[in-house]
Amino acid sequence: MQILLTISYDGTSYAGWQRQENAITVQEKLEDALEILLKRRVQTQGASRTDAGVHALGQWVCFNAPDLRVPLDKLPVVLSGLLPPDISVTNAIVVRDDFNPRFNAKAKTYEYCFYNAPIPNPLLARYSAFVPQPLNFCDMQKAAHKFVGQHDFAAFCATGSSAKTTVREIYGCELYKHENNVIVLSITGNAFLYNMVRIIAGTLLYVGLGKIGPDDICKIIASKDRKMAGKTMPPQGLVLLNIE
Amino acid sequence: MQILLTISYDGTSYAGWQRQENAITVQEKLEDALEILLKRRVQTQGASRTDAGVHALGQWVCFNAPDLRVPLDKLPVVLSGLLPPDISVTNAIVVRDDFNPRFNAKAKTYEYCFYNAPIPNPLLARYSAFVPQPLNFCDMQKAAHKFVGQHDFAAFCATGSSAKTTVREIYGCELYKHENNVIVLSITGNAFLYNMVRIIAGTLLYVGLGKIGPDDICKIIASKDRKMAGKTMPPQGLVLLNIE
Repeated sequence: MQILLTISYDGTSYAGWQRQENAITVQEKLEDALEILLKRRVQTQGASRTDAGVHALGQWVCFNAPDLRVPLDKLPVVLSGLLPPDISVTNAIVVRDDFNPRFNAKAKTYEYCFYNAPIPNPLLARYSAFVPQPLNFCDMQKAAHKFVGQHDFAAFCATGSSAKTTVREIYGCELYKHENNVIVLSITGNAFLYNMVRIIAGTLLYVGLGKIGPDDICKIIASKDRKMAGKTMPPQGLVLLNIE
Repeated sequence: MQILLTISYDGTSYAGWQRQENAITVQEKLEDALEILLKRRVQTQGASRTDAGVHALGQWVCFNAPDLRVPLDKLPVVLSGLLPPDISVTNAIVVRDDFNPRFNAKAKTYEYCFYNAPIPNPLLARYSAFVPQPLNFCDMQKAAHKFVGQHDFAAFCATGSSAKTTVREIYGCELYKHENNVIVLSITGNAFLYNMVRIIAGTLLYVGLGKIGPDDICKIIASKDRKMAGKTMPPQGLVLLNIE
């Protein structure tokens, strides 16, 4: 029996999702909690390898548990109780044994949050990137729409990626202005390259600052050159919102 | 020349606003930053002695600085740069020498945030109290209105208070349902007793859980008995929002 969990975490204290030697990760903490429950070491598989410091509200994680004794509807509360306060399990369902959370994910949505004010807001510092300069929001919005569609996103991929192809499809890319000086980039796609959302956020920031124009996005995509795109924004602004 | 600063802080790492022996406080950090700027130790006075773990978005702080060389409009950015990331100065103005931030504050607004869902949300854990039980929001709203007016709030004052009188006036007390299972209590008054907002929040929680009814609030106020009111809610749900 394969179980699919939906989990949330504050990534501040973790070296990302994926298990690592010599660093504490969310996967390790989750497998520790499952070991208490199942009295054996469990291998889990996540849908998205979120980086160090990146948060999640809807990460998917699968594991095999023919020996699970806890009723499925109680599993989120029980597992959340065994986890540290910065990780929660919000849902648990049974999926087919051949279900793979990474390859069966049809779409993922990420949000990147900018705090755009002259002075940082300490209550948002953990969950946003601070940008003190005035931003041209309309230009950023126009630029965001240029990412939609199937493109080769090589220019938006950090070095060190092992992806076979750099072609990805973006279904939606929108910028929202919230109250209290918060600007949120919401981006949905079939899959994302290494650091792709954070580089897109950094490129939109360049547009907001007037360093490049909204029409430059198509040229940057076409260049397939990482040096043409903006800088990689810091991880704390990024949240893996949900997976479909 | 007396300066009035407006400051924000994430209270998680501090033993409250007020300077203490053997504990790190927001006041100490602010006075350390002012010492770097003014090259002498500065005494500050805050409007509200927020408790350990309580946050602020609009605390008022005064200090005398006839020797201030930094232009007033640059002071927030300069001081914020000298402070740790969990404290910011958002505004600075000159006030009369006899202005006292504590006694000249006409009204203070606090917000108390509940996260009401079966499973905790790690991204809100620092800034809300987690309540897994279903709540009767309408009853809580009715009960909140009963606090408005001038009353003796002795039943809503923690022991150890040195207040001369326990009479306070509440100008507004409202409950709001936000998206994502967040319930916010917003309360404005001329002044507040020790732990008063957290005890009011705990009493409204009892109403939400059906332990008491909305009409019991008047009886609890009349009793002047701390034991009649609800429990003191944890500090991380509380934010000092602003001072008028």
